[in-house]
Amino acid sequence: MTRLHVPIRLRWSDLDAYGHVNNAEMLRLLEEARIQAFWETDEVSAEHAIGGSTAVLDGRPGADTLTLIARQEIEYLAPVPYLRQPLDVQMWLGRLGGASLEVCYEVFSPVGAEPRTAYARAATTIVLVDAASERPRRINDRERAAWTPFLDDPIVFTKR
Amino acid sequence: MTRLHVPIRLRWSDLDAYGHVNNAEMLRLLEEARIQAFWETDEVSAEHAIGGSTAVLDGRPGADTLTLIARQEIEYLAPVPYLRQPLDVQMWLGRLGGASLEVCYEVFSPVGAEPRTAYARAATTIVLVDAASERPRRINDRERAAWTPFLDDPIVFTKR
Amino acid sequence: MTRLHVPIRLRWSDLDAYGHVNNAEMLRLLEEARIQAFWETDEVSAEHAIGGSTAVLDGRPGADTLTLIARQEIEYLAPVPYLRQPLDVQMWLGRLGGASLEVCYEVFSPVGAEPRTAYARAATTIVLVDAASERPRRINDRERAAWTPFLDDPIVFTKR
Amino acid sequence: MTRLHVPIRLRWSDLDAYGHVNNAEMLRLLEEARIQAFWETDEVSAEHAIGGSTAVLDGRPGADTLTLIARQEIEYLAPVPYLRQPLDVQMWLGRLGGASLEVCYEVFSPVGAEPRTAYARAATTIVLVDAASERPRRINDRERAAWTPFLDDPIVFTKR
Repeated sequence: MTRLHVPIRLRWSDLDAYGHVNNAEMLRLLEEARIQAFWETDEVSAEHAIGGSTAVLDGRPGADTLTLIARQEIEYLAPVPYLRQPLDVQMWLGRLGGASLEVCYEVFSPVGAEPRTAYARAATTIVLVDAASERPRRINDRERAAWTPFLDDPIVFTKR
Repeated sequence: MTRLHVPIRLRWSDLDAYGHVNNAEMLRLLEEARIQAFWETDEVSAEHAIGGSTAVLDGRPGADTLTLIARQEIEYLAPVPYLRQPLDVQMWLGRLGGASLEVCYEVFSPVGAEPRTAYARAATTIVLVDAASERPRRINDRERAAWTPFLDDPIVFTKR
Repeated sequence: MTRLHVPIRLRWSDLDAYGHVNNAEMLRLLEEARIQAFWETDEVSAEHAIGGSTAVLDGRPGADTLTLIARQEIEYLAPVPYLRQPLDVQMWLGRLGGASLEVCYEVFSPVGAEPRTAYARAATTIVLVDAASERPRRINDRERAAWTPFLDDPIVFTKR
Repeated sequence: MTRLHVPIRLRWSDLDAYGHVNNAEMLRLLEEARIQAFWETDEVSAEHAIGGSTAVLDGRPGADTLTLIARQEIEYLAPVPYLRQPLDVQMWLGRLGGASLEVCYEVFSPVGAEPRTAYARAATTIVLVDAASERPRRINDRERAAWTPFLDDPIVFTKR
């Protein structure tokens, strides 16, 4: 199974008064992983991509495409303490539709940490929207070619 | 149907670079609504409770019970712009189990705004955990009595 | 002395792992107070203005003027715990220049709380910038008339 | 002059609706740099220290010492856009007192970027507080030895 591995470093301010990474903040970490993996920028590199770059969406100000979040689902498996080493956020696509895609995530302890903890699993449905017309637009050929290698089974959520 | 109505005021910093309330921030707004509705504090009042107070959880530092978030699901129905008047966050319980409960939300435009927009619907599964043993503990009689009037059908998510 | 009194409600997420309002978050609370006091919106009301409305800056997307923050200074006098009632943020102007102004703040316990605690004092220098040219623009007559009543001595910072 | 260089990676969510790093968020980035430089953790390494480790404060939950922020001052020199490469946060000590110290910062473009932009300069006064007594405690010999090499002139703020 081909997954993107994006290292996401915590900030101390991600902790809430309980001393663990806040539940809403976790979705911000996933947002950050998603942006690093899917957004094309001037400075993008292949550092975080395994098996080719997925970063084909133009995320710069004034870009033609907006990415709208239509839904999210997350299961928290273990509280995340403050960690100096980056979380290992693994990502793949659970669905690749006409104008939308589902990004799947599993969040693990830093690479090399023992024992290895699975902290969360989650999914985000993204709709590509044309910035000018504000209407959904189809995933184009370049995007489909870049993303298809990461297509795999969607997450089976067990806590519904 | 008996719902809690909690007014949640936006901050300008809830907006992201797209100029709308950020998708992760929306879960922070729901967290705030949940805390105002369910946490007992010295200063708690009945201002936000309809049909009796649900605020029977002790949320003060050093309290006996921790509330763990086990899962969340959210559907975004319309982007939320900057609003001066508070969002109308409506809440009820979709399930009341042994040691856990499901909080359901529908987020609407400020009361009195025309037209009325439904911005999001969501659900959070909470587990009550004994702070000393760090193990789930049963919902007690006082809590069950306070919360049962708000029990209703869970949300039917349509974008799965 | 004529001061604006803006009630700013805490969110539980303003606390950090120390259990107090985070030092950087405090500046976000001041930002929110400033926006409520100075930004004109469709929905603005006189609720928070004493002695006339200061909300004469157009803060809507696409507005002609941007407000740039040039400097900030803050002294923390006491840690802020989680409070259900809104902080009493008092504001005035310490300086009203050609294209810039200095907003001064003192942050107090909620109105009516005993004892009354002064939590912080701070100052923010704002430059008005023309959105099109991205250059500073002069404070206009309407703004000067609205803001002059709140002009007073700047804060004397004691911890420098 | 001996400075600590701490690379701080932006998150897209650090941007506000103006499309630049938010003014309050900038202090959060400085907080993160400070924690990485001064807090000792199980996993600390010398990666970010030049000329010896300054990370001699125990920042773990339940530690003996709390670090209280007494004041902060910041001058914003240029708006910070979204950057993929980490900011170069340079730090030194402007003062090393009995129980308190002043951390000074200059925030620059990512290492290697052309042209090199100075985005901000700032200072934070920290007081070491004994967690048990909640009273200031003296900087100890180990801390003084670790921090003295980074002592230099404090920032001369020019926008006061």
